[in-house]
Amino acid sequence: MREFVLYSRKGRTDAHFTELTEAGRLDVVCECIVASLFLSHGIRRNVTFNALLSGPPSPPLHLEIDGASLKDVRTDQGTWERILKKVLSGGSHPGMSVSKNSFETLLKSRAGEKPIYVMEEGGRDIFETDLRKNPVFVLGDHIGLPKAAEVFALRFGEKISLGKQPYLAASCISVLNYLMDRRAMV
Amino acid sequence: MREFVLYSRKGRTDAHFTELTEAGRLDVVCECIVASLFLSHGIRRNVTFNALLSGPPSPPLHLEIDGASLKDVRTDQGTWERILKKVLSGGSHPGMSVSKNSFETLLKSRAGEKPIYVMEEGGRDIFETDLRKNPVFVLGDHIGLPKAAEVFALRFGEKISLGKQPYLAASCISVLNYLMDRRAMV
Repeated sequence: MREFVLYSRKGRTDAHFTELTEAGRLDVVCECIVASLFLSHGIRRNVTFNALLSGPPSPPLHLEIDGASLKDVRTDQGTWERILKKVLSGGSHPGMSVSKNSFETLLKSRAGEKPIYVMEEGGRDIFETDLRKNPVFVLGDHIGLPKAAEVFALRFGEKISLGKQPYLAASCISVLNYLMDRRAMV
Repeated sequence: MREFVLYSRKGRTDAHFTELTEAGRLDVVCECIVASLFLSHGIRRNVTFNALLSGPPSPPLHLEIDGASLKDVRTDQGTWERILKKVLSGGSHPGMSVSKNSFETLLKSRAGEKPIYVMEEGGRDIFETDLRKNPVFVLGDHIGLPKAAEVFALRFGEKISLGKQPYLAASCISVLNYLMDRRAMV
């Protein structure tokens, strides 16, 4: 099992928007959903994706997507815009759930049970890190993780780094999935 | 310099569409554009992305995006839908060009000058391949590279593989960019 946690600083917490980009960059959240959960013609059943939406009107909102039960999805942003609007307005979709939990509540629920890795350029190089099983990877969005959230996460986890380049959150997730695939295989 | 070549089997070759997904999955092309050319808050100036659009009404069309001169872009699909519609209807955008060249013409123009790598699950493992400078990576879209195109490409290049999993084309590109970044650094 792998888990990704995206802290979305401005991601809108209701369905009153016309474009994903204007909804606190929910398009970034969609990109990360796709990078986390999709193979070519298949869903990664061993992955859970979490977004902590912290934008107006009623933050925080914890969106959780469980690859094990997700269905009726495609990779395009139009599809995800429709699904997000549905679940953000109280509707349901297989594999998805929405709750009022905070980032802190989510991390506390994982701490102890699973190793937590906070992705940051200045962290320990992933190629020099012996990742433990069932990792939870914590990422910021295009604005980055707020300092208080980072400090909180580091009470339970450690900082690791993919390298010196500042990658898109979705690219980080694609690379993490890949490196995990390779390590399991070798 | 790195170059990606995406063979889009059904990608529409004019601007008469209302949704990217209905235009021969031009959303897949957009995902690959973003994975190829974007860092967080920056463009990869050393990357060129090519899409060979082979859908109706007038294939083939070679769309080329040069990171060195690309501007006025964001990562969301709404932005790319607008830009694609503009250039597919004869308009211009900085860093982008459209021509009637075929896949074969494009590859011939690179052969000899640059090493060509055809991404395929059954190819030689990338971790056992000493990639040469200025690589050109050739990928199929969600349908895969047509057999004739693959045979043609292999006259000039070799098959390499990221592993046993069938990744989304955009995920392959994110991983290739990452592995290239890391090799240059180490």
